[in-house]
Amino acid sequence: MTTTSSSRRHRVVIIGAGFGGLFAAKALRKADVDVIVIDRTNHHLFQPLLYQLATGLLSEGDIAPPIRDVLRHQRNTHVLLGDVVDIDLAARCVRVETVGERSDVAYDSLIVAAGASQSYFGHPEFAHDAPGMKTIDHALELRGRIFGAFEMAEREPEAAARGRWLTFVVVGAGPTGVEVAGQLAELSRRSLRGNFRRIDPAEARVVLLDAAPTILPAFPESLRLRAARDLRDMGVEIHVGTMVTGVDGRGIDTISGDRHVRRIEAATKVWAAGVQASPLGRLLSEKGGAALDRAGRVKVASDCTLPGHPEVFVIGDLMSLDHLPSVAQVAIQSGRHAAHTILRRLTGDTTRRSFRYHDLGSMATISRLRAIAVLGRLRLAGFPAWVLWLIVHLGTLTGFKNRLAVLFNWTVAFLGRGRAQRVITAQQVFGRHALEAEERAP
Amino acid sequence: MTTTSSSRRHRVVIIGAGFGGLFAAKALRKADVDVIVIDRTNHHLFQPLLYQLATGLLSEGDIAPPIRDVLRHQRNTHVLLGDVVDIDLAARCVRVETVGERSDVAYDSLIVAAGASQSYFGHPEFAHDAPGMKTIDHALELRGRIFGAFEMAEREPEAAARGRWLTFVVVGAGPTGVEVAGQLAELSRRSLRGNFRRIDPAEARVVLLDAAPTILPAFPESLRLRAARDLRDMGVEIHVGTMVTGVDGRGIDTISGDRHVRRIEAATKVWAAGVQASPLGRLLSEKGGAALDRAGRVKVASDCTLPGHPEVFVIGDLMSLDHLPSVAQVAIQSGRHAAHTILRRLTGDTTRRSFRYHDLGSMATISRLRAIAVLGRLRLAGFPAWVLWLIVHLGTLTGFKNRLAVLFNWTVAFLGRGRAQRVITAQQVFGRHALEAEERAP
Repeated sequence: MTTTSSSRRHRVVIIGAGFGGLFAAKALRKADVDVIVIDRTNHHLFQPLLYQLATGLLSEGDIAPPIRDVLRHQRNTHVLLGDVVDIDLAARCVRVETVGERSDVAYDSLIVAAGASQSYFGHPEFAHDAPGMKTIDHALELRGRIFGAFEMAEREPEAAARGRWLTFVVVGAGPTGVEVAGQLAELSRRSLRGNFRRIDPAEARVVLLDAAPTILPAFPESLRLRAARDLRDMGVEIHVGTMVTGVDGRGIDTISGDRHVRRIEAATKVWAAGVQASPLGRLLSEKGGAALDRAGRVKVASDCTLPGHPEVFVIGDLMSLDHLPSVAQVAIQSGRHAAHTILRRLTGDTTRRSFRYHDLGSMATISRLRAIAVLGRLRLAGFPAWVLWLIVHLGTLTGFKNRLAVLFNWTVAFLGRGRAQRVITAQQVFGRHALEAEERAP
Repeated sequence: MTTTSSSRRHRVVIIGAGFGGLFAAKALRKADVDVIVIDRTNHHLFQPLLYQLATGLLSEGDIAPPIRDVLRHQRNTHVLLGDVVDIDLAARCVRVETVGERSDVAYDSLIVAAGASQSYFGHPEFAHDAPGMKTIDHALELRGRIFGAFEMAEREPEAAARGRWLTFVVVGAGPTGVEVAGQLAELSRRSLRGNFRRIDPAEARVVLLDAAPTILPAFPESLRLRAARDLRDMGVEIHVGTMVTGVDGRGIDTISGDRHVRRIEAATKVWAAGVQASPLGRLLSEKGGAALDRAGRVKVASDCTLPGHPEVFVIGDLMSLDHLPSVAQVAIQSGRHAAHTILRRLTGDTTRRSFRYHDLGSMATISRLRAIAVLGRLRLAGFPAWVLWLIVHLGTLTGFKNRLAVLFNWTVAFLGRGRAQRVITAQQVFGRHALEAEERAP
């Protein structure tokens, strides 16, 4: 299928329907342009709540509405499921592959919002035993491993093996790692109470590791200390200044700043450390000559365009500009900036305006009823921060129905004790089976 | 791990935590016995609503609560995740395998409630292209195929191929097949409205096939006719008296009663025809000499026991007795009968009481706001039947939280337009990719 750009209207192609791509598309809803949104999945993922899918609080539908349903009222916008495998900057055309079938899509303006995946810092083989936290599939795999580990511990007669099943290591102490560790502590101490007969799930060991000298380095020290105290109160062990040197099915090898080597026996590992930009960054570098930063992100001009290609915007987690962090707000604002620049150009205004990021603050939940938050000069911790976190996340979720559904699930989970989503599918058990078999092999 | 029966208390082992096994366990909650419930999954599946998971109305957690959470207050009961691979009737012991690890569990009384899987009537190779409707994995796979088919149709330039993506064939016109066909019609005509730009999802063709001369043969004729009319009004094509002779990635081959051979080009096929009892039936037949019926079910004595083994009960879909149907109520009532028989024996009462099934009626939904129901002499159709269906299903769902969650999701879905659960995971897309690649191979 070849779609030519012979139609009269200016065509904007957006690669990726994460925060950056979706908000760019929305900003073009009333424009006299054709918009084509291309994504490799059928859903927009509300990434900040992915850890709640992995730990059984929410379902996949709650945090991942279909892109085409979100944009259904936007008649100028067409959604296409597929992987972008090539970008031809000279011909202004992207090549899309959908389950083996290829098609070419021409553009007048291109917004590349392909985001980032997990980085294993040169050790991609770690991914097998320590899945990342970037996609719905990751979260469902982790959910199966987490709840499956308690099942295995319950039937394990040998103490050492039981201890291994009941040990959970989270690598990376940014907001995602902290949130996963907090949830693991809470589900083992609270949600699973009374569910087992041979083990006490509250004896589960939750370890949070980071190579940095502190958890949550992006937050001010007072909040970092408060978060660390809250985590320790919940039973989370924190090991900072600790690098991972090896990961296998049965545990994790680490070395600390003082060259102390330590092995932690743990069946379940979660990788929440570092991001690696989409391979489309390298493609743009090879084809368009753009420089990349260490994480593979594209160094863009101050207006978020690819140097030498004013019609190509690179935004969000794939963009390297002014050391901006990889957070949702940067993606949303740079997506809107790209859309507004395209709209201004269509009116004949070709002055280049630099992207200005407005930091709206940042927050991380520690547990039910506890969080930390920074808003300009305001610093909040504990319950007030948690209420703020709740309001902000409900308010920014996509879709009225999803907000209602999440509010419902939170009410049930926070007032009650349980978690609504604890299904382990056969695919996941078979996955574990494969891991186990591999371990036993000589 | 070997668990001996050296403890003082009588031990009841229950294989399977479907309706039969779960209600047997619940009936033993206050008894002075040890109960061990063994299941190959961690959840109790509320099978009557599985079609709503496959079609995006409900999430897996809504219809599949963890077995050990359902039974958490029942202190005499222990839940074990694993597959039963052998039963030693002489030694009174079952062998359980959990991801490669084996353990033996001794019993004093055994309740075999292992249920049934889909039957392909001697053509197991059909399963690849026409998944069944028996497990959470089946339903999630079908969800990915159903919503994925519309995605593929949207990007398909060729009319014939687009037609194939937009054709859905449901094999088997019992309640499950009728419910799936009704949901497919409703989601294509209603839920997906406005979501696509190149196709009109309402043009999807939904075909319901059955070898029998009528749909819903278990219902009285007036209700069958009403259901057929309602389905046709929604745009479902009904082909009765039609046998399936072949299934492949691109379609299905059929032959009708008058030897008319027909090929239907259809990317998505759902198999809801016939059940095959668990392989444990054959095992009991080989070891205990029990006779099996055509579906592989164990012919039991009138008190649901294995002939010659009064300590072994076979119940639910695995039991063959008086031509009782494979429905939830038979499983629940036979499970309770087995539990009550064990309780009576413990008091010294060894009189054998035959199982008496009380038919509480049956019902099937056709669509939002329409159903059919039989309750004794009462026959309902349309909206009154649907209200009754709603109340009965909410009332019989396991767990207060699940009832709330399902009520919430139904309210949103039935008043609104959308479906909350439309995520296609990468596993499912890759599965489809494999199917596609296979088709293209010479």
